Amino acid sequence: MGKIAAIIGGGVIGGGWAARFALNGWQVRVFDPDPEAKRKIGEVMENARLSLPGLGNVALPQEGSVTFHDTIAEAVAGADWVQESVPERLDLKQKVYGELMAHVPEGAVIGSSTSGYKPSELQAGLARPGQVVVAHPFNPVYLLPLVELVTTEANEAERVDRAKEILTGLGMYPLHLRREIDAHVADRFLEAVWREALWLVRDGIATTEEIDNAIRYGFGLRWAQMGLFETYRVAGGEAGMRHFIAQFGPCLKWPWTKLMDVPDLTDDLIDAIADQSDAQSGAHSIRELERIRDANLVGILRALSRENWGAGALQKAHDDRIEPASGLVRHMDELSDLSQPVLSARRAVPLEWLDYNGHMTESRYLEAFADATDRVMQMIGCDADYIAAGQSYFTAETHIRHIDESKAGEVIDIRTQVIEGKGKKMRLFHEMRAGGRLVATGEHFLLHVNLETRRSEPPTPQVEAALVKLAEAHAALPAPEALGRGIGAAR
Amino acid sequence: MGKIAAIIGGGVIGGGWAARFALNGWQVRVFDPDPEAKRKIGEVMENARLSLPGLGNVALPQEGSVTFHDTIAEAVAGADWVQESVPERLDLKQKVYGELMAHVPEGAVIGSSTSGYKPSELQAGLARPGQVVVAHPFNPVYLLPLVELVTTEANEAERVDRAKEILTGLGMYPLHLRREIDAHVADRFLEAVWREALWLVRDGIATTEEIDNAIRYGFGLRWAQMGLFETYRVAGGEAGMRHFIAQFGPCLKWPWTKLMDVPDLTDDLIDAIADQSDAQSGAHSIRELERIRDANLVGILRALSRENWGAGALQKAHDDRIEPASGLVRHMDELSDLSQPVLSARRAVPLEWLDYNGHMTESRYLEAFADATDRVMQMIGCDADYIAAGQSYFTAETHIRHIDESKAGEVIDIRTQVIEGKGKKMRLFHEMRAGGRLVATGEHFLLHVNLETRRSEPPTPQVEAALVKLAEAHAALPAPEALGRGIGAAR
Repeated sequence: MGKIAAIIGGGVIGGGWAARFALNGWQVRVFDPDPEAKRKIGEVMENARLSLPGLGNVALPQEGSVTFHDTIAEAVAGADWVQESVPERLDLKQKVYGELMAHVPEGAVIGSSTSGYKPSELQAGLARPGQVVVAHPFNPVYLLPLVELVTTEANEAERVDRAKEILTGLGMYPLHLRREIDAHVADRFLEAVWREALWLVRDGIATTEEIDNAIRYGFGLRWAQMGLFETYRVAGGEAGMRHFIAQFGPCLKWPWTKLMDVPDLTDDLIDAIADQSDAQSGAHSIRELERIRDANLVGILRALSRENWGAGALQKAHDDRIEPASGLVRHMDELSDLSQPVLSARRAVPLEWLDYNGHMTESRYLEAFADATDRVMQMIGCDADYIAAGQSYFTAETHIRHIDESKAGEVIDIRTQVIEGKGKKMRLFHEMRAGGRLVATGEHFLLHVNLETRRSEPPTPQVEAALVKLAEAHAALPAPEALGRGIGAAR
Repeated sequence: MGKIAAIIGGGVIGGGWAARFALNGWQVRVFDPDPEAKRKIGEVMENARLSLPGLGNVALPQEGSVTFHDTIAEAVAGADWVQESVPERLDLKQKVYGELMAHVPEGAVIGSSTSGYKPSELQAGLARPGQVVVAHPFNPVYLLPLVELVTTEANEAERVDRAKEILTGLGMYPLHLRREIDAHVADRFLEAVWREALWLVRDGIATTEEIDNAIRYGFGLRWAQMGLFETYRVAGGEAGMRHFIAQFGPCLKWPWTKLMDVPDLTDDLIDAIADQSDAQSGAHSIRELERIRDANLVGILRALSRENWGAGALQKAHDDRIEPASGLVRHMDELSDLSQPVLSARRAVPLEWLDYNGHMTESRYLEAFADATDRVMQMIGCDADYIAAGQSYFTAETHIRHIDESKAGEVIDIRTQVIEGKGKKMRLFHEMRAGGRLVATGEHFLLHVNLETRRSEPPTPQVEAALVKLAEAHAALPAPEALGRGIGAAR
């Protein structure tokens, strides 16, 4: 039987906690007088089940139960962790804590999701103030790892350690503040940016969308990986943080924002920042940090491209603009010579496609071949609209041969021969070349399917006619060397 | 012959511009009196060549030349775009602009990389002020798409349009400010956060590393995809932006930050924000935005995991913690029964592994099989240390059969039979199951290689002995149904 978490208050934040605990194998008991609580938490759980388990590469423990209870007393019985996420009103929270003191087992940690109150304000007047800590999470709680852990001298050291251990066990990063402060750390930044954004909208400098774009096409992509100081360490170059602060320090005094009160850049403060930055990032040279930053950016941007969102959607639009000049076409009618294998990809090897052996990793060859197959499908009329209307091709079988290596940034071409194309069947043979060298081949057998029934069926007459035309035009080509071969036969 | 860009000032920013122009097919001419300029730009180009071409899925045009010139006059001759990135001193910039006026073709756009000055300050007193715009990029210029385009009434409409067209053609997003303002938009946010961070370090609340973690494990991951307002729109839920502002507006007056001057939340301001947010994001329901956000987060976090960085490194550490409970082992000596196929993966299908057909996409089957192969390698002693010492296995050939579909969040097991294992050769047969259903098989032929010579050679005696032991233990298992089969033979 797993550990027990009691969730007091089941809104977006409480529901996120419920999902994170349950999907990590905890039994979850919810108390929330809202008659909609069950539905709301169910919706959060549904999102979380799709996204959290596949975040890592190892299966999570068996999902724990989520039950709903009419009283706080019943919800917290036997609990190892109690998480309070009731609305941000101190009087209301204090009333809840009074009741918790009467029922929560003495060994349990009580965490508050408060974004504004200090733990001392929550602990004031309680019988066992040492049980209560601030554990402030970020939405969506089931995916974002940050949780601000704020404690006071009333909290026993062992309880603080247990809190850290439990939060870490949920896949979270407990950021233990050195001392309590209004709004903790992260929300102070959010507040500073929010306030500046309100000025920009009010003064008509930029719209909400333009402001969001200023973030997600620029520094947001840096902050997702390195935060503020490490980003500036890289920007400062080999001269280091002291140089960066000296160079950009004066800007703080310029009229760049509405709000001008700044700390004095004393030698002590500059030393503290430079020393802390060395301790944090000094293990990497600036050149290494630049390489790491670029690899992360490519990974983040390509992840966003897969969802056609944000900076990734910009990249896709750019791809569309440069495609005609690359020699790629979208329909077979645009091909000048139907009798030759079709150019189905011309692209550079992305940095994120490398593996620990320093070359393109095997699954990315199949990603490139699969994209090439998609283009052949598009060329015969099985395009996004056709698929949206309910039919597609599924790959049934694949045979890949790795003949040579390929490196990041190198341009690869794929040329495709249609081996068979009739009725439900399509069989393609891809050859991938880099600078003329043959690096890999891919043989693919696909079946045309109905996306409703998930069963194979013939394509529309238009698509079939196009495929047959291409297959017949390729029939005179010599059979590729490895065609139809199995791995056993190759030895 | 491509278009010509003149780069005036070749530091980190000028070098980034040079790389972006050249890799998009422009001829680049650099003027920078720094004797190190050639080396510095060469280093930026080297990073850019690895990362920029593979950002998208279509090859960029042929790279343009980068040449270095001793005078501004020579560098700007025939230029279509001139980008000024000299140090942030107004007197210096004005001197440069004076010289540019004498030599730059009248049709060219002159962009300034200034982060602080307004275009009117740069245009003052020039013969052709309409040629000069602010085009403020973000580091690394060759990867981040944001460029703030700031103009004045002196700029002709056609020149502004051409500037947008050229920047868009470089894969950038020109954010055209509605009017000029000190520090434009993005740097005002950066400044607000930087100032608050200085307070937090000075007051000993958090270190530079803790502050970076507060960003990159939390809101940084949200901002990379949605920015500020859209993130809050989702947080506000179905009640919308007006509700969100009403609920969190009062916090602005609380003592959350050192700096307290805030705009009044008048009805006009609330209406403006809510209406702009509707125009920006209203095409998606909150539920849709939540799904999009989660898919983006999974993609970003998994991209960071591949680099073992930031929130992705946290996820890998969590995987390591939960691995023992999953039934997976790291060395064959830990296996209870050597005679049965080895459990080589137990994981959930990540959200980012789905395709437009709504199921796990083909290349991700190979990603899962390749990870399973890595675990078998680890089990026989070919682990990270062994690879770092200079030897590894490369996959030479793969045969995949897709038997059933698999969905996001579903747990898949892979069990692996060693078909052949002796000398340089390793042949594995993976079976992937989801809830007991066989969904795919993968047959893989690998060769042991020397990572220095990139040629095949036998493994160390220890690794070979372990592989032989496992192969012999599996020799009594029946041959898998599809073993050795080619695609042709399967028909």
